[in-house]
Amino acid sequence: MKFELLILGSNSALPAYGRHPTAQLIRFYNDYLLIDCGEGTQMQLQSYGVKVNRISTIFISHLHGDHFFGLIGLISTMNHLGRSSPLVVFGPADLEEILRVQFEASKTLLGFSLQFKPLNHDLPAVIMENDRIEVRSFPLNHRVSCTGFRFNEKNRPLKLIKEKVKKDQVPVSFMKKLKAGEDCSTGEGKTYFSADYTLPGPSNRSYAYCSDTMADESYEPYIQKVDVLYHEATFLHELLSRAVQTKHSTALQAAEVAKRVQAKQLLLGHFSSRYENVQPLLTEAKKVFPQALCAEEGKWFEIGT
Amino acid sequence: MKFELLILGSNSALPAYGRHPTAQLIRFYNDYLLIDCGEGTQMQLQSYGVKVNRISTIFISHLHGDHFFGLIGLISTMNHLGRSSPLVVFGPADLEEILRVQFEASKTLLGFSLQFKPLNHDLPAVIMENDRIEVRSFPLNHRVSCTGFRFNEKNRPLKLIKEKVKKDQVPVSFMKKLKAGEDCSTGEGKTYFSADYTLPGPSNRSYAYCSDTMADESYEPYIQKVDVLYHEATFLHELLSRAVQTKHSTALQAAEVAKRVQAKQLLLGHFSSRYENVQPLLTEAKKVFPQALCAEEGKWFEIGT
Repeated sequence: MKFELLILGSNSALPAYGRHPTAQLIRFYNDYLLIDCGEGTQMQLQSYGVKVNRISTIFISHLHGDHFFGLIGLISTMNHLGRSSPLVVFGPADLEEILRVQFEASKTLLGFSLQFKPLNHDLPAVIMENDRIEVRSFPLNHRVSCTGFRFNEKNRPLKLIKEKVKKDQVPVSFMKKLKAGEDCSTGEGKTYFSADYTLPGPSNRSYAYCSDTMADESYEPYIQKVDVLYHEATFLHELLSRAVQTKHSTALQAAEVAKRVQAKQLLLGHFSSRYENVQPLLTEAKKVFPQALCAEEGKWFEIGT
Repeated sequence: MKFELLILGSNSALPAYGRHPTAQLIRFYNDYLLIDCGEGTQMQLQSYGVKVNRISTIFISHLHGDHFFGLIGLISTMNHLGRSSPLVVFGPADLEEILRVQFEASKTLLGFSLQFKPLNHDLPAVIMENDRIEVRSFPLNHRVSCTGFRFNEKNRPLKLIKEKVKKDQVPVSFMKKLKAGEDCSTGEGKTYFSADYTLPGPSNRSYAYCSDTMADESYEPYIQKVDVLYHEATFLHELLSRAVQTKHSTALQAAEVAKRVQAKQLLLGHFSSRYENVQPLLTEAKKVFPQALCAEEGKWFEIGT
């Protein structure tokens, strides 16, 4: 089943060179989760053929405009399109008031339940969990309270031994349960044991999102051994002092973090608008961590294997 | 001197078919005035090569999101780019609080003076005036308080009689004053009378903006004989009942208004996202008012002659 990431915006504060402010879409199985929502996110979703009302949950990392100015427009559009299913929004507590005053001024009555869940920035927490996924939040180190997110797959299905299943004529309706580790019995008392028909499946997949932050060790415990680490890389390392001053990271630092936490892959983003060409940031990161890529808008990245 | 209009967004509530929510830029002489500011306006300005910090004044007609969701991002970008000159924003009173809570949450301190001027929706008023232009606001008829704007040129320069100016060797430094109707004297006591060197210039130009509104006669006194009338035309007339229900106008109604107020030209916009092709709206309007055009994004329209 799918665990993929679509980059909707890869730039930092200012849109530039066709790059947009930050937004990312996770497709996990058939669920769509949005991380951050800079201005124009709804247009980007439209450009890439994603129906906005497939999004079930939105995670806003912090209240700098390039990470949330598109949220009110996206929610309004969901409403215009007749959404009825609930929408969960995780974000800093002040975000609720920001949405409220705008809905009130425009006399907007939502036709669906908007469930706002304020984040506690100071402590790591499991903020969402179901049979398939758990989402953890953790503190980053930025100029305003900023939260990272880690998406951990759970209970990835076991692998069916197809030959044996076929030979024993196991009913098709049992397959899903057997893959989930459950034993199945027929009405006639015949039991099929999951352990007899499955092998261990591939390992659970994980994705971590770290934007915006000064690179430091404080959040490394929460992103250990992640399959894909998205880490902001606003500047080249020659602008380290600027990165420190603004509490951002350099591409080199992002790579060092990825190496220390033993990530399998690193995705760089949140590029400063001073860079028309972002390849030098990638080159810098690859010297330390070869499995690095640039977040490229419109591109789907597979999480794990 | 220039009096031009750049369409930045021509669609209604939802962005669709590459069309954006409402925003328009007036270039008047060397001043830039923005009318409404839907999501993505700053990207549109960037696309069309307009430097955002050339904008001196912004007029927000009402607080439906497709007319103001881009404002907070635009102002933030102006600030990021180091603006120091004041910015004047006219808009419904609630807009001030909407901006305030967002600046506060993001800990944004503006490096320039943001002068917010609340509009009185109930009464027509002169809201801005200088030697060259006067801007009037007037009530429209929509689901929330909505204001129209009329931009009237003043004191358009007289036309110099070039042959006479040349023959009498009038100093170049006097030209501007003579065209403005002022007499000029040299240090030696020689006086050049404006009336001797000028002819009446072309008439003052005017532009009126009516979006969003149900077409009715209430606002017609304020848009009489305007050079260019922008009037919303959300629907074809076959959807009149929908237009009435949502307090919008049909293309036919927009044309009827233009005809009744004796506008010289009509610009249609605020198209419903149900129309991939907006030509049928234009065709409908032209039957009643042949001098009609569609607002086309990225296109500059000259106001008057």
